[in-house]
Amino acid sequence: MKIYDYRGFPNPRRVRIFLAEKGVDTIPFEHIDVPAGAHRKPEFLAKNPYAAVPVLELDDGTYVSESMAISRYFEESHPTPSLMGSTAKEKAEIDMWQRRLEVSILEPALAYFHYGTEGLGPLEIYQNPDWGTHNHDRVAGGLEKLDHQLNGRPYVVGDKFSVADITAICGIDMAKAVGIGIAGGLINVHRWYDLVSARPSMAA
Amino acid sequence: MKIYDYRGFPNPRRVRIFLAEKGVDTIPFEHIDVPAGAHRKPEFLAKNPYAAVPVLELDDGTYVSESMAISRYFEESHPTPSLMGSTAKEKAEIDMWQRRLEVSILEPALAYFHYGTEGLGPLEIYQNPDWGTHNHDRVAGGLEKLDHQLNGRPYVVGDKFSVADITAICGIDMAKAVGIGIAGGLINVHRWYDLVSARPSMAA
Repeated sequence: MKIYDYRGFPNPRRVRIFLAEKGVDTIPFEHIDVPAGAHRKPEFLAKNPYAAVPVLELDDGTYVSESMAISRYFEESHPTPSLMGSTAKEKAEIDMWQRRLEVSILEPALAYFHYGTEGLGPLEIYQNPDWGTHNHDRVAGGLEKLDHQLNGRPYVVGDKFSVADITAICGIDMAKAVGIGIAGGLINVHRWYDLVSARPSMAA
Repeated sequence: MKIYDYRGFPNPRRVRIFLAEKGVDTIPFEHIDVPAGAHRKPEFLAKNPYAAVPVLELDDGTYVSESMAISRYFEESHPTPSLMGSTAKEKAEIDMWQRRLEVSILEPALAYFHYGTEGLGPLEIYQNPDWGTHNHDRVAGGLEKLDHQLNGRPYVVGDKFSVADITAICGIDMAKAVGIGIAGGLINVHRWYDLVSARPSMAA
């Protein structure tokens, strides 16, 4: 088993944090030089025709891409501690919040990076500054909704840390990296951010 | 239990097909008049602050939004027939393809609809024709990759119909609704489309 990724990018980081929380520390990582375009070379496209990291290679040669699909693999193969819920209701609520935070924070922060800033430089084959600005502004709305959800809850979905918290912190740190901070009034997000950032898995 | 949706829209349709495949036909649907803006009224925002259908209301009053989270709830509460896989590897592959087809077909078709056409008319508070055109053109690439995956496979993930097929057909029908067809040369997609379209669940 092996994971192809680029350390520091938000989607690879989601998987790295997930594995660290599971206590899985035996899988080697192979560095794919994304800023140099290595993810668009035929050798990598044979692993993931959708040209993105991370990619998990299983022992039977199967390749799995998409951060949440890779996380799902480890949730099933290493069930403890659960990061995607136990009951039908818990699983649905965690899936829901994971997706809401992808759509409202992580994806707009990435869209701003790619379309509204220089992004990955010469790799950016399509630019749309207006779409970038629109997404920059959407992050603030996403953070406000997250603040509301965190009112009276230590983690996004109640008392337990879950994959929804992982998506949220990777989204917020991506936003911070492009200059979008957490507004001072969002006291629940600030309290949660300090709590989650202190977890050892965050350095993965 | 109850589902709030708008029949005919692609995300509500994903959940309706999923339920029909599961043989769950006892849950009432409540019509939310999205084109009239009902999803942005306080009464609906109390159910889903992210202002989108479908929403599942559980018997304990919990609301679950996001099509895949709702589908996950029924996958867990009604495991047979499985639409999200049985083993860790199967679950990961189905999650992966579901997400790839969301990103490469359904989401760009919806982006073209909302940003590159009149979309929902006065409800469209942000327009970006260039982003619309860009997404229009992305659908063709998504269909080509799907054709490649379907070469030698009856369904997206091998021999069994899954939620990945549901996302694909809802994405393709959304694309067709805005004038983006399947290129004649994509013979695998055409064969698969005819096979999947004939399932009784498609009329749900």
